[in-house]
Amino acid sequence: MAMSKVKTKKLCSDHRTQVGVQRRKKTEALIIRAALNVFAEKGRDGAVIDDVLVAADISRGTFYNYFDSVEQLLERTSRWMVEDLIANFIEPLLIMQVDPAERLCTGLRLFFQRAEADREWCRFIGRIWTIGPLDAPSKDIRRGMRLKIFTVPSFDAALTMQRGTIREALLRIATGDIPKRYSDQITEVIMQGLGVGKLRIAEIMSKPLPVIKQRAR
Amino acid sequence: MAMSKVKTKKLCSDHRTQVGVQRRKKTEALIIRAALNVFAEKGRDGAVIDDVLVAADISRGTFYNYFDSVEQLLERTSRWMVEDLIANFIEPLLIMQVDPAERLCTGLRLFFQRAEADREWCRFIGRIWTIGPLDAPSKDIRRGMRLKIFTVPSFDAALTMQRGTIREALLRIATGDIPKRYSDQITEVIMQGLGVGKLRIAEIMSKPLPVIKQRAR
Repeated sequence: MAMSKVKTKKLCSDHRTQVGVQRRKKTEALIIRAALNVFAEKGRDGAVIDDVLVAADISRGTFYNYFDSVEQLLERTSRWMVEDLIANFIEPLLIMQVDPAERLCTGLRLFFQRAEADREWCRFIGRIWTIGPLDAPSKDIRRGMRLKIFTVPSFDAALTMQRGTIREALLRIATGDIPKRYSDQITEVIMQGLGVGKLRIAEIMSKPLPVIKQRAR
Repeated sequence: MAMSKVKTKKLCSDHRTQVGVQRRKKTEALIIRAALNVFAEKGRDGAVIDDVLVAADISRGTFYNYFDSVEQLLERTSRWMVEDLIANFIEPLLIMQVDPAERLCTGLRLFFQRAEADREWCRFIGRIWTIGPLDAPSKDIRRGMRLKIFTVPSFDAALTMQRGTIREALLRIATGDIPKRYSDQITEVIMQGLGVGKLRIAEIMSKPLPVIKQRAR
């Protein structure tokens, strides 16, 4: 309670942040959206905090009510970008698939398709995205392990291999210097790391990829 | 020739760096060594360029004769640390092993043994080490592919998986929050990703690990 009072007091110091949790979430989203626009305009490496303040039309004080540091803003923004891609573009295309190997394989291919279309996105996500595991792919790995479709030493090792390989691949794709079929090969090597046999991998990979629809804005 | 003259002229601007390539290499090593000492004292995150200048007893101008930026110093230092570990601690213990799977597996276990003993080292290498592939492990992967011991979609995919998984594991080890047998599981999942069968992996993992000797200083 004492904590809450202190927090409230702090929030009251800025007129934009008086009306509770919902409003707070909205402003946080506003800042992240502003950051995304700044990144789109100035490139993600060149953006500085002042650009974000101008774009979101907030004071420095307000910013630090929501984020501890610019680094934290970058982390949350990169997480938002990945979650948005998975929730709004990839998951809708996977609803008909139940097999965890097929879901993960198709999900990875769609993810890399998006990645290859935007090198700057790759560099940003590859460098910044350091936060915990993502819901959907983790669930697939766990289900696959339960069904013995994935045979791995542990969930933690599987997740480390999957995330690490994805990140390293994004950094490589960001250079623009990738061999033919690189993304598909990365998907294959991840599936192999999860213990899926070569024939099964080839079978899944031979299926046509669902098409990502452009979102109406 | 013209290039060489320009370079020489630049070097002459500082009295410490007049005597050619050998001297240049020596000074570069001196700066990296100084950086290592500063990191050891102040922690790798807290170190700033001025600490390195004092420790190496060089001017800012000299520093920038050798490195474009602090980031470059960090990259080269982290690369030096990994290469030193491989060349002086791991490789000497692998000279009796010829099988690429055994060499890579044992090398990885020794690497992670070192990593687990120093979380700060893990964080530093995990975050900074972004430069190209390392000689020894790349050779093992290529040889393993030629001998069909490793069956992977491509060398590039194999290297991405191996490097990415190692880096992600280092970042995890750096948190201090790792499950039991985590490093061994990471080694196993990398071997599986390279296409080595579970029985063969278990066989190699069951062999006792050679002991890293402390280097006399």
